Formats: sequence, C-alpha cells, structure tokens
Amino acid sequence: MPKALITTVPFSEINTLPIEMLRGNEISYSLNNLQRKLNEEELVNMVNDSEVIIAGTEPITKNVMKMAKKLKHISRVGVGLDNIDLAEAKSRGISVSYTPDAPAPAVAELTIGLMISLLRNIGEANLLMHQGKWNRFMGRRISEITIGLIGVGRIGGRVLRRLRGFGTPRVLVNDLLVDQSLNRAVPELKLEWVTKESIFQQADLISLHVPLTLKTKGMVGCKEFATMKPNALIINTSRGGVVNENSLYEALKNQKIGGAAIDVFENEPYDGPLGKLPNCILTSHMGSMSQDCRTRMEIEATEEAIRFLNGQPLLSPVPIEEYNIQKIII
Amino acid sequence: MPKALITTVPFSEINTLPIEMLRGNEISYSLNNLQRKLNEEELVNMVNDSEVIIAGTEPITKNVMKMAKKLKHISRVGVGLDNIDLAEAKSRGISVSYTPDAPAPAVAELTIGLMISLLRNIGEANLLMHQGKWNRFMGRRISEITIGLIGVGRIGGRVLRRLRGFGTPRVLVNDLLVDQSLNRAVPELKLEWVTKESIFQQADLISLHVPLTLKTKGMVGCKEFATMKPNALIINTSRGGVVNENSLYEALKNQKIGGAAIDVFENEPYDGPLGKLPNCILTSHMGSMSQDCRTRMEIEATEEAIRFLNGQPLLSPVPIEEYNIQKIII
Repeated sequence: MPKALITTVPFSEINTLPIEMLRGNEISYSLNNLQRKLNEEELVNMVNDSEVIIAGTEPITKNVMKMAKKLKHISRVGVGLDNIDLAEAKSRGISVSYTPDAPAPAVAELTIGLMISLLRNIGEANLLMHQGKWNRFMGRRISEITIGLIGVGRIGGRVLRRLRGFGTPRVLVNDLLVDQSLNRAVPELKLEWVTKESIFQQADLISLHVPLTLKTKGMVGCKEFATMKPNALIINTSRGGVVNENSLYEALKNQKIGGAAIDVFENEPYDGPLGKLPNCILTSHMGSMSQDCRTRMEIEATEEAIRFLNGQPLLSPVPIEEYNIQKIII
Repeated sequence: MPKALITTVPFSEINTLPIEMLRGNEISYSLNNLQRKLNEEELVNMVNDSEVIIAGTEPITKNVMKMAKKLKHISRVGVGLDNIDLAEAKSRGISVSYTPDAPAPAVAELTIGLMISLLRNIGEANLLMHQGKWNRFMGRRISEITIGLIGVGRIGGRVLRRLRGFGTPRVLVNDLLVDQSLNRAVPELKLEWVTKESIFQQADLISLHVPLTLKTKGMVGCKEFATMKPNALIINTSRGGVVNENSLYEALKNQKIGGAAIDVFENEPYDGPLGKLPNCILTSHMGSMSQDCRTRMEIEATEEAIRFLNGQPLLSPVPIEEYNIQKIII
C-alpha cells in the first residue's frame, strides 16, 4: 500500500473529499498532528518511508530528501516553491507538482480587503475601539491614490480585475515582462508599466505579488523604505522574506511610512515586534484561506499525488523555468 | 456681520477652503472646540446668536431651536437628517439643506472593506496577532456567499457597483421601491428583490444602507437575529439605532451569528460592551471620512450656508419627502 505524508494544515477539514480520495485509491496516509508549519527537524522525523508528500510551506531541504529514502513525488498545496530545494529534488529524481491557479482569487480578494483596511485605518480603529478609545481617522479612497503593484501575474492580475469597480486610480505596475493583454483585460484602469524604483518612489500604496527567489529576497528594505512617500502604505501577501522585517519595523516605528499590512513572515507562526505597532495590520498567512480556494488546492494536490502513485502523467508539474529561476534560498 | 456656528468635526482640516470661503464672504464663524459630537446641552450653550449652523450629527432639537433666537438655516455636512427635528424647523421658518451625494462613495468603499474584513477574519486575526497569537482563520470569498443589502439608494447602489469585479455572488436587495435601473447598472450581478425578512433569513452577509427614521429604528433586533443563519455577518455603516445594540451584543456573545462590523452607534463616541467581542469589528463613525468625500461635503455645506446668507436660492434643500418620512425620533 503506497504511503503519503500530508504536511500541510489544515487538510480535508472543510471538505473531506481529499481524504476520501486517498482512501478510495487505497493510499495510506498520515497527517501533520502538530497542526502548524513544521520545521526541518520535525519534517525529517516525520517523513519515514513516504513515497509522496502533500506539502505546505515547510522546508523540504536536501537534508529532508536525504532522509526520505522512498520519496518520489512532492505535491504542493499552493503555488510558492521557495520551500522546496528543486535542484536537489531533480537530482534525486523526485518530481514536483503544484496548484498554481487555485489560491489566486482568495489572495487577490484578501489584498483588496487589506488595501481598504489600510486606506481607511480599519485595523487601528478596531484595535482602539477594543480598548474603549474613539478616534475618527481620516482616510483615502482607492480612486484618490496611486497604486503600485510589483508582480502582476496570477494574483496581481486578479487584484487589478477587482479594482475595476472603484473608480480610476493611477496604477503603476511592474513585472519581468510587460503583458499587454493585461491592459486590455482592465480597460477601466490606465496601467503604467514602470520600474520597481518608480513604484517605491511614487506609489501611495504598494502591493507585492512576486514569488520568493534569490532575486526577490529582501527586495524591500531600508533603502527602498527611504525612497517611499512619508504616508506610503505597503501590503505583503506574497512571501515572508520579500520584505525585510527589521527594516519594516524601523520604517513603521519611526513613521517613515504610513502603514503596512503583512500576511506572510520570515518565520511562521510569527509573534515578533510588528505586533507592537498599531499601524501594522497583521494576519496569519491567510491569503489562500477561503473555503472555495483552499478546497480546490487540496483536491488538486491530492489528485496529482494519486495520479503519480497510479503511474499516470502529472497534470501540473512544476515547469522547467521554476527550476532555472530558483538558486536555493532555503 | 452674519454669524455661523460650525458644530461638525473635523472641519476645514484637510482642505482650508471652507474657512477661506467664509472669510471671503465676511461671515464670522465659531468652531466646535470640544472636537467631538456635542450633546443637546452643549449645543444650547454654543448656539447664541448664530444665523446658520453648519452641522454634524449632534441633536438639533426643539429645545436647541428655541434657544437659537436668530437661527434661520441649518446646513448639514452629510446626508442623515435623524438628528434634526425637521417639523420644528419648518414651523419656525428655519430652512435645512444637506449634501446627499458627497459621502456616498466613501461609505460604499468602507463597506466593501468591512465585508472582506469580516469574511476573511482580518479584524480578529489582527487583534490576536497584536497579542502574539497566530490563528489561520478559514474564510469565505464574496462570490461564495449570498449578500443581502437593505437600502440600495445612493450608498447601497454604490456598494453594488464596487462588487462587480468580485465574481457573481447571489445578491438579495430590498428597498421601499424596486429600482429596475439598478439591475441594468450592474449587469454582472443578478439582483433578487425580496423582503427584509428574506434577507435576514437567507443572506450570509447583510449590509444596511437606510436612514434612521421611526420605521427603521430597531429594525434589526432579537427577533431578526433569531432568524439569521448561524454564521451570518452583519454590517452597519448607516446609523446607530437601526441595529439594537443590546440584541447585537447578545447575538454575537452567544454566537447566534458569525460576526459584525459596526461603524455607527446609538451614543457616540462609543465605548460600550461590543468592544469586548473579538468577532465584532468596530470603527468610529468613519463612513464618510475619506479626504475627497469629506472635503466635498464641507465645501458643499459651506457654499449652501453662504448662498443662504447672501439671499441666493439653495441648491440642495432637504426635499419635502424627508419632512413627511420623519416623525421625530430625536
């Protein structure tokens, strides 16, 4: 009986289909009973003779793969690959698949919620009101500001589509390539394709939608915060590490910028000093955590694991470019 | 030199034009130095020989008007008229004007922000993270749920327009009259015109966009909460009093419903027991508080006061229907 280790949490909670699928295919499975993101050592101790990992964002390092003697496939529940040493997987003949589209609508929608929360000071007002303090914050509307998106692929593109009903903000966008089809997809918005530096300098609200790679690690640090507007707002729903947390803390504490909304952290679960700052909205890596998207991610990743174990071709193997981009950051 | 009393706060802070306009027209003015909503007694003591009040939401009662011997005009900064005894004003020959359209975009945008905040548990996650606690809440997306809007006039209609980019939720709407033009304005959404009772029973998220009148006072209380879905969410950015605060507290505390986001209160500033509940997002009557909308409201109301004092016709007098609807609730 083939064995699957499921490290991602939650799993099969809202919809039990993924576990039923595994049972139906006579695959034995074990779950992550710690109910949180595993560290390398915990993963090493858990992997045993699993042939497949249905994986979250825990570090699947060279060391883990060395200990996982029977591991043949990693099926990521989600899109980020920063936690997997792809080169090592390749050299060991371990295939890797992912669910690139499934989380995107949920992340985009959370991002819009965080935009309005920052612009209207919902987070800080709510913290104060829960201490019995009343402060009528003056905010700004989306159509009053210049928005800057770094990364306008699956998630950033969906953020833009959701902005269509909010008037016509100035929107600065940056990505590796200019995607003219995006201009046509959101005719209500006038996209300006600019450098990252221009976005840091000119945007009132900056949102990051990039993967974590050697090129994006620390992309936003002291130098970048220093060039931002004094009331600039920044949102990170992509990956911890893209924004340098110490630099962000200093920028917020010293009011070099206006505020931040951070969903992802260098170390998760996070309980660091950003939690002391009222002008920093903090959520707990909840970008993909909508019932529909999470269910779709879990089902797609489970289907892919089953396909692998049944000797069928994968539907969503990680494309070769991802192996080329990644130069080991874990 | 004619005299104006400005009771609304803030006033002329983001944009000093309103005060410059008063000076340019040689109108003497005094400001609300308490910097918060006045009660009846404070207003009585402040009104003296003012000919015009540029008014916020403080109670302009029969008693206030009796003491304001020279008062001839009330120019409301905003749209709600629940704080003005219109019949008394009429009988004394005091005209009343308002700025009905100016706040609407800001209120609608705050509402969308509160919708996503509730659906994705941003408020509760942020409270917990500021205590160093990590909890990955499972949420829902707008397109997964049934939304119910009670009141789809200036503000509710704008909420619908902003929902266009978010997929196709089921949307239940209720108003005094069915407005077919609204169906055409948001072809992406399928509006179902239903009773208020159907909305309470069927909607996953209910948002209120009605004025406070004798008919809407206490519109949502124990009876209504009892018919709602167990995970129903409710947003009130309209007026305190439309939702019974004690009933809301009990419904949230006993988890009869899933959560609430409340911007307006029976008594403001609010520091009551809802602040003890993590599943209640609280903001401080900030619906209209965006720089652009607030500026527009203050300028329009000041222009109207100047027009009155210069003997010119009013551009935005309160229409006769408002006098008929209102049967004194202050």
